Amino acid sequence: MASSAPSSSAGDMDPNTANLRQPATSFLQKNNSLDEKSRMVGSFKESAKNQMSCDNNERFTRDETDFSNLFARDLLPAKNGEEPTIQFLLEVVEILTNYVRKTFDRSTKVLDFHHPHQLLEGMEGFNLELSDQPESLEQILVDCRDTLKYGVRTGHPRFFNQLSSGLDIIGLAGEWLTSTANTNMFTYEIAPVFVLMEQLTLKKMREIIGWPNGDGDALFSPGGAISNMYSVMVARYKYFPEVKTKGMSAAPRLVLFTSEHSHYSIKKAGAVLGFGKENVILLKTDERGRVIPADLEAKVIDAKQKGYVPLFVNATAGTTVYGAFDPINDIADICEKYNLWLHVDGAWGGGLLMSRKHRHKLSGIERANSVTWNPHKMMGVPLQCSAILVREKGILQGCNSMCAGYLFQPDKQYDVTYDTGDKAIQCGRHVDIFKFWLMWKAKGTIGFEQHIDRCLELSEYLYNKIKNREGYEMVFEGQPQHTNVCFWYIPPSLRGMPNGDERREKLHRVAPKIKAMMMECGTTMVGYQPQGDKVNFFRMVVSNHAVTKSDIDFLIDEIERLGQDL
Amino acid sequence: MASSAPSSSAGDMDPNTANLRQPATSFLQKNNSLDEKSRMVGSFKESAKNQMSCDNNERFTRDETDFSNLFARDLLPAKNGEEPTIQFLLEVVEILTNYVRKTFDRSTKVLDFHHPHQLLEGMEGFNLELSDQPESLEQILVDCRDTLKYGVRTGHPRFFNQLSSGLDIIGLAGEWLTSTANTNMFTYEIAPVFVLMEQLTLKKMREIIGWPNGDGDALFSPGGAISNMYSVMVARYKYFPEVKTKGMSAAPRLVLFTSEHSHYSIKKAGAVLGFGKENVILLKTDERGRVIPADLEAKVIDAKQKGYVPLFVNATAGTTVYGAFDPINDIADICEKYNLWLHVDGAWGGGLLMSRKHRHKLSGIERANSVTWNPHKMMGVPLQCSAILVREKGILQGCNSMCAGYLFQPDKQYDVTYDTGDKAIQCGRHVDIFKFWLMWKAKGTIGFEQHIDRCLELSEYLYNKIKNREGYEMVFEGQPQHTNVCFWYIPPSLRGMPNGDERREKLHRVAPKIKAMMMECGTTMVGYQPQGDKVNFFRMVVSNHAVTKSDIDFLIDEIERLGQDL
Repeated sequence: MASSAPSSSAGDMDPNTANLRQPATSFLQKNNSLDEKSRMVGSFKESAKNQMSCDNNERFTRDETDFSNLFARDLLPAKNGEEPTIQFLLEVVEILTNYVRKTFDRSTKVLDFHHPHQLLEGMEGFNLELSDQPESLEQILVDCRDTLKYGVRTGHPRFFNQLSSGLDIIGLAGEWLTSTANTNMFTYEIAPVFVLMEQLTLKKMREIIGWPNGDGDALFSPGGAISNMYSVMVARYKYFPEVKTKGMSAAPRLVLFTSEHSHYSIKKAGAVLGFGKENVILLKTDERGRVIPADLEAKVIDAKQKGYVPLFVNATAGTTVYGAFDPINDIADICEKYNLWLHVDGAWGGGLLMSRKHRHKLSGIERANSVTWNPHKMMGVPLQCSAILVREKGILQGCNSMCAGYLFQPDKQYDVTYDTGDKAIQCGRHVDIFKFWLMWKAKGTIGFEQHIDRCLELSEYLYNKIKNREGYEMVFEGQPQHTNVCFWYIPPSLRGMPNGDERREKLHRVAPKIKAMMMECGTTMVGYQPQGDKVNFFRMVVSNHAVTKSDIDFLIDEIERLGQDL
Repeated sequence: MASSAPSSSAGDMDPNTANLRQPATSFLQKNNSLDEKSRMVGSFKESAKNQMSCDNNERFTRDETDFSNLFARDLLPAKNGEEPTIQFLLEVVEILTNYVRKTFDRSTKVLDFHHPHQLLEGMEGFNLELSDQPESLEQILVDCRDTLKYGVRTGHPRFFNQLSSGLDIIGLAGEWLTSTANTNMFTYEIAPVFVLMEQLTLKKMREIIGWPNGDGDALFSPGGAISNMYSVMVARYKYFPEVKTKGMSAAPRLVLFTSEHSHYSIKKAGAVLGFGKENVILLKTDERGRVIPADLEAKVIDAKQKGYVPLFVNATAGTTVYGAFDPINDIADICEKYNLWLHVDGAWGGGLLMSRKHRHKLSGIERANSVTWNPHKMMGVPLQCSAILVREKGILQGCNSMCAGYLFQPDKQYDVTYDTGDKAIQCGRHVDIFKFWLMWKAKGTIGFEQHIDRCLELSEYLYNKIKNREGYEMVFEGQPQHTNVCFWYIPPSLRGMPNGDERREKLHRVAPKIKAMMMECGTTMVGYQPQGDKVNFFRMVVSNHAVTKSDIDFLIDEIERLGQDL
């Protein structure tokens, strides 16, 4: 930090004395002449040439704008900052559109793997360290290119590593607009359009769940774990509203139920909210990862006999590893019998509600008190986009409101019931709705349905391909309910070996070794994990609309290529 | 939803059988010919012409690409989808860069206000409703334009409504890149570069706080309220780690302390985490909104005498309304004496640490156990960017880890201590670091310092301008500590009136009325609120680097113009 630094050109420039009665012509005449445009043209021509030479990582030099002598302080709001601003943004867009192109190109690697110490030491001109002095815009553009170069292409058709994958172009455009608008969801006052879009879209989602007239309440939250946490909070508020004021000591010992295959966020919510994770009781599942309702009832009775108070049951619609759907109707029966809050964690499986063919797997969801549903997973919406939906209207407000006068003034000129901020545990809240709303407009409900059906067809293709193939064992029998296909690849050296500790230990090391080689080669990525007493296995999922059967074939070929000598 | 819908062209196309050994030329030859580029050129020329006619809101028609017959299904990954994809994205960028230009142009309105019912009824071709069938890309582009048109320009030099304002061009470019990369912070595996950038940047922030060697721990979280919640969670884990497992019933009655001027998120954290909001004890402040340390000590002693256990003290560095800085050193003395966790909520004031001139206001912050610091407020980083920083290493992990095997495999090929996901209460976590890292590179530490100093100079200018001006009363005496300038505008009709209920009631209605008129006119926006027994007053803040003295003058003129006849 140097106080003697040159003063920024964003200093007290003489702003135009324009007021709102003058037409907005001055800057257009100044900076947007056709001459200026023809310079942009030059850029795109140059760029095309550059791409033709296939040297995509070489820095593209624009002779028109020399960014090496330009700095952040020369951009808007600096005097005469408009031209360099537009030039700089176009240059960034050039980098991004090249990245988009390559993402869908199967001749591009999924990733160019480096260990942390390698990136930290610095890679040819890419230095992560921050310094006191500014860098030129030329270096900033290099940094942008390199950031993408050493990252992971989560939109690549052969990236199968996460439940969220794919790069939807409409969603991407939506995110670019969202960041340009740079606003906040807490009030209608500063996000009128986004607040209304959120309201309409969440109502539509509640209709699709099957709640009468789409009534109820909802919010987008920063991810499924937080959405699940909301569900536990709201359940607590419903049955023990005094906890908000007096704390958990005002309630008896409350217990929550969720399956041993459910997402860890339920247990985490128990820890965070003051229930304690030992009061999150894990339910047994069948061999396919679905809750056994009788086990729920037995554990509810057991808890009551111990003097605890059963409060909340989570049913998972699409577990993380097996993709299992808990039998919601059976669970709902038990919840009604014992007066328990029923939450459905459909973070992963909620998308299947959009498909007439597959939505029966969530049958009974309309009986839930709350639902988590992440459009950023199965519906291909860019990260992040997760909804917590609640059947009872007003309860989010009751649970979370603190009535901060500085933000939620009751004496505004518009209907302040549109201000959503006091329903949230956040104050500021990121605009997660626009990309989703825009995708819905662009694809229609049927577009989402086609996407879901197609991903499930592809996983069926994979399942049929490997279920009887030599060298493969399925982790559970029968066709998967979701796109999750869980399997072991058995290298030839293990195929004749009898079951036992030695084989288990060896097999446990196969998936991590293959995964490490995949990442080093950069050809594809797929997840693995152990589950219960089962050693490491691959979990294949499909949520990316760019995937085709050939990519599934490629994955299998690649596993066999890398694993045959293990 | 219609199952008979035409099948998407993103169907099982025949992907190129390319593998990684083939050069990436095919699509370039196919789609990126110079011919193609000259069509883009046409677009920009046409666009320039359009702008020259000053009709910025008219839909710009490209005769080259007819988007009326193109749909989302024609974009990548569709066969031959590359050309329309690039054309579409460039068209979106055209819309966005026009928006950016106008944001900095003072002849543009800050907003074009409409009531919720007006937007819901639909505005000339802008319909928020979602439908089953897809809309053309032409309509999608209209929707993008209209979304911006009816929104609020938070980057406009006359938008003073929120602590977060401004539109930083580097930060914007960073956000565009972030959404294109579309990944998730939970593991190094899928976000290697971003994970390292986060680590380095957070270490730098800890160094600036003054913790030895920048040691400690930290995370970016979805906003200051969640960051503050983390601080309470970590404090609880430090003193009562058994709560994680057994719940709040394993701890005695714990109490938290924060000032009556502090942000409501501390009280909210008390409610959420199971302390109960009545166990969040509010501390008295002096007339300028700063905690009175003696009141803290008295209340700590009182709580102990009642058998409660004081756990946590929040000191605010930059309160929301007054911009007050609590005396951290005095509070730290008390925390040390009574063995309490000290958190500093520097969401708003943390940025002043970057300024050698102003950082003394946070003197003692290095004694805090945890700090909230939102670069998205005073440092002008786009939303969202909030850090929770903790002095003790490993405690975030201890507090929050659940060791989910499917995500955090210990047997990866790289050093898995870089996987950050298990430290968070979220599972997926948005990439909030890149824009901030890129801005730091581009501005340097000195760039942030200049920004902070300049905003504080502008608020000093405002304070000096109105402190003795007829028709103004300051809410508190003396020069503000932060950029917050709090004042009443007294319309001529109230100037002679004696103090009393009638004047209070009338004055209470002045700010909301002026604000409503400002919004209807769209000329400027500034916040107001009551505070304690003080009726509605204006809270002016400056965090936008586009603001100049002329904008301050404009605000005052506008308040007087709109308020003179009230």
